[in-house]
Amino acid sequence: MLATVIYGDRDIRVDEVAKPELSTGGDAIVRVVAACVCGSDLWPYRGVVSVDEPRRIGHEFVGIVEAVGDDVTKIKVGDFVIAPFYDCDMTCPNCLNGVSTSCLHGGWWGADDRLGGFADGGQGEFVRVPHADGTLVTTPEQPDPALVPDLLTLADVMGTGHHAALSAGVTAGSTVVVVGDGAVGLCAVLASKRLGASRIVAMSRHADRQAIAREFGATDIVELRGDEGVEAIRQMFDGIGADCVLECVGTKESMDQAIRSTRPGGMVGYVGVPNGGAELPIRSLFGTNVGVNGGVAPVRHYIEELLPEVLAGTLTPGRVFDLELPLTEAAEAYAAMDERRATKVLLRP
Amino acid sequence: MLATVIYGDRDIRVDEVAKPELSTGGDAIVRVVAACVCGSDLWPYRGVVSVDEPRRIGHEFVGIVEAVGDDVTKIKVGDFVIAPFYDCDMTCPNCLNGVSTSCLHGGWWGADDRLGGFADGGQGEFVRVPHADGTLVTTPEQPDPALVPDLLTLADVMGTGHHAALSAGVTAGSTVVVVGDGAVGLCAVLASKRLGASRIVAMSRHADRQAIAREFGATDIVELRGDEGVEAIRQMFDGIGADCVLECVGTKESMDQAIRSTRPGGMVGYVGVPNGGAELPIRSLFGTNVGVNGGVAPVRHYIEELLPEVLAGTLTPGRVFDLELPLTEAAEAYAAMDERRATKVLLRP
Repeated sequence: MLATVIYGDRDIRVDEVAKPELSTGGDAIVRVVAACVCGSDLWPYRGVVSVDEPRRIGHEFVGIVEAVGDDVTKIKVGDFVIAPFYDCDMTCPNCLNGVSTSCLHGGWWGADDRLGGFADGGQGEFVRVPHADGTLVTTPEQPDPALVPDLLTLADVMGTGHHAALSAGVTAGSTVVVVGDGAVGLCAVLASKRLGASRIVAMSRHADRQAIAREFGATDIVELRGDEGVEAIRQMFDGIGADCVLECVGTKESMDQAIRSTRPGGMVGYVGVPNGGAELPIRSLFGTNVGVNGGVAPVRHYIEELLPEVLAGTLTPGRVFDLELPLTEAAEAYAAMDERRATKVLLRP
Repeated sequence: MLATVIYGDRDIRVDEVAKPELSTGGDAIVRVVAACVCGSDLWPYRGVVSVDEPRRIGHEFVGIVEAVGDDVTKIKVGDFVIAPFYDCDMTCPNCLNGVSTSCLHGGWWGADDRLGGFADGGQGEFVRVPHADGTLVTTPEQPDPALVPDLLTLADVMGTGHHAALSAGVTAGSTVVVVGDGAVGLCAVLASKRLGASRIVAMSRHADRQAIAREFGATDIVELRGDEGVEAIRQMFDGIGADCVLECVGTKESMDQAIRSTRPGGMVGYVGVPNGGAELPIRSLFGTNVGVNGGVAPVRHYIEELLPEVLAGTLTPGRVFDLELPLTEAAEAYAAMDERRATKVLLRP
């Protein structure tokens, strides 16, 4: 089968690789209908994370179940399924607590040490899914093809934006600032709107992304950054800042922006993968009672909550995809996101 | 009047100083009935915080109002009052948000830059209280003298323990670990019990404090620290840790203990004044979805909530006082706490 392989800095190729096979009894083989490129895939692409040898990449996909192991009871051949960006059993103590990203038996796509051997991550034609009954969520019936982009966002970005909002405690009437205008930041705007935020500020300098943010419910756009950005936010909210600030980037600068934009007693919800030594300044957090909550989003738990609204057409996060390409053009997909010609690219095998 | 003055490392004296006078129109003069020594007073006492010149010390007191300024409308001469460990107007945006420690016009006892000039902090005979209507909370009538220790804890330690519990999200059924067995840690145990925690582990190596922790509702005591302490806690809770961990010390070691004792998706509530560069390890927090929330406790808001239970005798945090001395023996009070001969010392002018 074909699958995307990263060879090094800005070197993405689509190679012929072995098709995966069932191996544990509890896994499934899924034929990928749609996959996509994540902002975090750009870290190795840009060399921020080193690539020592060629390896598979990607972790977001939806598809049709082609085969299941003997121990699989819920997932059936032919089901349309959404996979979170990791696998999990949904039965361990952490899964039962709603934190399936910390599943005691789960792990990450594209890693060699997965249960039953290597498991690819979706930027390819097929994926072997460990403990399929836990990992996968099925749609009630075959979905309208037009909904595929929306469904695909439930694999990561929409659930991750939702996690940022929940982690920051967004609720009816909250004032919200979203730091980061990538697909996750935009989904965080949408999630905040859905949760009833009264005012949502998107910090963005890109007209195309500002437009999506407005569609998703942003009431205000702030283009300033650093001290000027902080001051602009404070002036909008009683001179003290917003209740909830959603950090959707992961740099030291973005976390600093988020913390300083939060009012005393407010909360930063963060989902940006921390890069560049962004240790938290505890003394200033202590003095202002600003909390920091979040992390790698347990989106598996959110798929079931968000899916009915996507199927009903009332939640349309698929709008973040502004470019669609065949899998064979994965290199162009990465380049387009790297160069900000696209917000998020959907790939079809 | 007499007041406690710190001159340097382990040099506490009770000096004759000027009695305070009304100065702003909105302030009150309070005759101190009882004051106490705080764990944080030991930082300058031990030289961890340097003392450049002699200065007043102390920030917890209850007393009787002796005089009020012309603009004071709620507080009356003769009222029994509880003061939080800071002053605040209760009308600014931060106070209205429940974060009176970030009052835009408030500040800390014993500082020269207070509204209307210097304001002493309670380890003396009289205190001038800026914006008295905001800062002070009155009891409905003159309280039973036996309740004075309990009432005095509302000035700081009981409210601070309560803040640790609220910040960590303690609610009915929560599993809780308290790191720190000082008066605040013990009050955090009591607060967790009051909020309905199902299991409360006190980490303590001192038999006298363990006994108070048990009285306050601790179900388990753990004497181990470091890796062994973390392992003991994890084993008690499904191998993953507790829902809520209350950090009541403020050192790098105690924060590390707290973070590692928290289950994935759980929350650290911290109230220990951070000392020694305890920056937070964001990458491990991100990976486990452990949040960190808390800070300097807005106890002014909690006094009204907790006071009825103290007056009814159903909440008895005054048990943390295991030594009572006249103000003139303040030096011995500090020494007793420094040498751990006492958990917390009450002073009577």
